[in-house]
Formats: sequence, C-alpha cells, structure tokens
Amino acid sequence: MVDSTCGAMAGVSPLAASSLAQQTPSPFSFSVASTRWSFRPPIHLANIFLRFFALVFSFVSALSLADLSPNKKSQPSISFTDYPEFMYCFIVSILTFIYSSFQLFKGICDTAHRGILISDMISDYSSFILDQLVGYLLISSSSMAIPVIQHMKQTGTLWRAAIISTTISFVTFLVISTCTLLSGYKLFKRIIW
Amino acid sequence: MVDSTCGAMAGVSPLAASSLAQQTPSPFSFSVASTRWSFRPPIHLANIFLRFFALVFSFVSALSLADLSPNKKSQPSISFTDYPEFMYCFIVSILTFIYSSFQLFKGICDTAHRGILISDMISDYSSFILDQLVGYLLISSSSMAIPVIQHMKQTGTLWRAAIISTTISFVTFLVISTCTLLSGYKLFKRIIW
Repeated sequence: MVDSTCGAMAGVSPLAASSLAQQTPSPFSFSVASTRWSFRPPIHLANIFLRFFALVFSFVSALSLADLSPNKKSQPSISFTDYPEFMYCFIVSILTFIYSSFQLFKGICDTAHRGILISDMISDYSSFILDQLVGYLLISSSSMAIPVIQHMKQTGTLWRAAIISTTISFVTFLVISTCTLLSGYKLFKRIIW
Repeated sequence: MVDSTCGAMAGVSPLAASSLAQQTPSPFSFSVASTRWSFRPPIHLANIFLRFFALVFSFVSALSLADLSPNKKSQPSISFTDYPEFMYCFIVSILTFIYSSFQLFKGICDTAHRGILISDMISDYSSFILDQLVGYLLISSSSMAIPVIQHMKQTGTLWRAAIISTTISFVTFLVISTCTLLSGYKLFKRIIW
C-alpha cells in the first residue's frame, strides 16, 4: 500500500523498492546480500584452504600407517592390520581423504562456475552433516588408538607410526571442526534467511 | 530517498515503514520476528527436554562406574580408578552432568523470565561452543573405553559396569549432538540477522 503510493510519486519501480527492502533486513544481512560477490570469497577461500589442509593431513595420517604394510621385507611380522583400532583409524583417514578431495574439487569448481556439481541447498545440508560426522569419526578413531598405543611394545616401528598417525589424525579433526563451523554458518544462513 | 518521498505523500511515518521493512526481510524470518513468542516455545521446550535427558544419562553413566567404588566390601581389589580411561569417562560424565544441569536450570529460568542469568548473546555463543566441546569429549571418552573393555577380564563386575557406562555415555553424546544443532541454529540466527 505504501509502496504503491510512493512508487508512482517518486518515479521508482515499486517492485524494485520492495525487493530491495526485502533483501536488506538489517545492516548485517545488508552486507551479505548486496555485496554478495565481495563478501563470498573470504569464507569461500578459507573453506578451500581448510579442505586442502584436511586432504593433506588425512593423506599423511593414512600413509604413515600404510607405509608399514606387510609387503616390506624388513617388517614382515607386524602390521597395523593386526590391530582393529588402527584399521579403524586407517579407514577413517581414507574416508576423510576422499571426502576432503571431493569438497576441494567442489570448492574449486564453484569458484569457476557456481553450483556446477550439485545445488547449493543440498550441498549446504550435506556438507554440514558430513562435516559433523567426519569430525566425530576422527576424534573417535584418534581416541580409540591411544589406549592401544599405551599398551604396545614401545620400541617398534608400528608404535612410532601409530603415534604420528594419531597426532595427525587429531590435527585433521581440528581442521574439520573448523570446516563444520563454516558449513554450519552457510547452512543456518540458508535456513533462516 | 524513496522512503522519505513516499512517507510524506502516503501519510505513514517513514521510520515505521522502514523499520517494518527491516524487520520483515522474507517470509521465513517474518515468522520468526513477528510471532516470536508463538515460535520460540517448541525449540525452547525441545531444548529443555534434551537437556533433561542429557542430565539423566550422564548421571547414570557416572553412577554405574562410581557404584563400584573401593568402599564396597565385596569388591575391594578392583575399581574403575585403576584404569585412566575409565577415570576419563567418569570425569567427562560428571562434567556433562554439571553442564546439563546448568543448561536445564537456565532453560527453566528463561521460560519464567527471559535472560535472567546471562545475556542471550553470551548464552548462545557459549552454548554452541560448549555443546561442541562436550560432544567431542563424550565421543572421545566412549571410544577410548572400548579397547580397554575388550582387553579386560570379561566376567568382572567392572566389565559389566564399564559396558553400561560406555553405552549410556554414547547415548548422551547423541543427545548432546542434537543440542548442538539447536544451539547452532540459535547462534547463527543471531550472527546473521
């Protein structure tokens, strides 16, 4: 009612005015809405960097265990596959690696062309849920490895490899939990607004 | 510019019109903003119920371990304090119990009088961060207890108590992770809007 009166008088399209008002609810969301492209890159870039770190760390974590595979002639008897806890660590690291590489690929694709892989809405929901899940899996596998490391023979190669793997796995968890905050921010922004 | 022209013509206060427009950015946030009191209770009530469940479960989890204290004449030799992993479980359960009771108390106080304890903003930030932290601690302590349970004598009273405690601790983790989603929703709603 107000808009239609004013639009005709002021010579400004009422539709444009009302849509502008709808897009700019507060100073906060104004900066998000109208300067979308200048605001998006920092979070987007931070996300890509975090995904890259998660990719590298999870790869190193899995590699430090797999490097002691039974194929090596020098260590034929002992392997991480003998311990189900280390197998769990290894599988979680591999899953994190696959997930991080997918997210990194998607992040790089999105900078080139927005939403090329899957729609933004599905992406936000799945990212948040999978980030939470991967974070819980990582902290769970790291924690589960600690008592096994404590009760192992403390001089073996596997002992050192397990400590390195668990430590890096914990660092990966910290990176993924930061990713969770970012993807949570993106998701809840979508739900609310 | 548009508002000042239109306000004078339409006889409606420009301040009122613009503030109305600022408060109603979209159909979604309109329902949150204008019907705040009719919208708040479901989430608020769900939060109180979840906090209550977390309180009960964490108490039972701690109790099932503490029930085997060395004071009992029948089990003088074995205690959960001999295992650092179970001590960790116990401490995390106690912390979860204290945190849940505080959150439950705050939730009940808030229904009577809003923001009586601490300001809403500090509450939202601290709730989300502490929920995440407690969730990670719970999954970590549950996971750490599993290898110890596997390597224990499988007939003792402590073995049964540890299994009960770990299972309930995992259920508490599920409840707390749901709380994290709710407090994340509340926090990001505040940040964005």
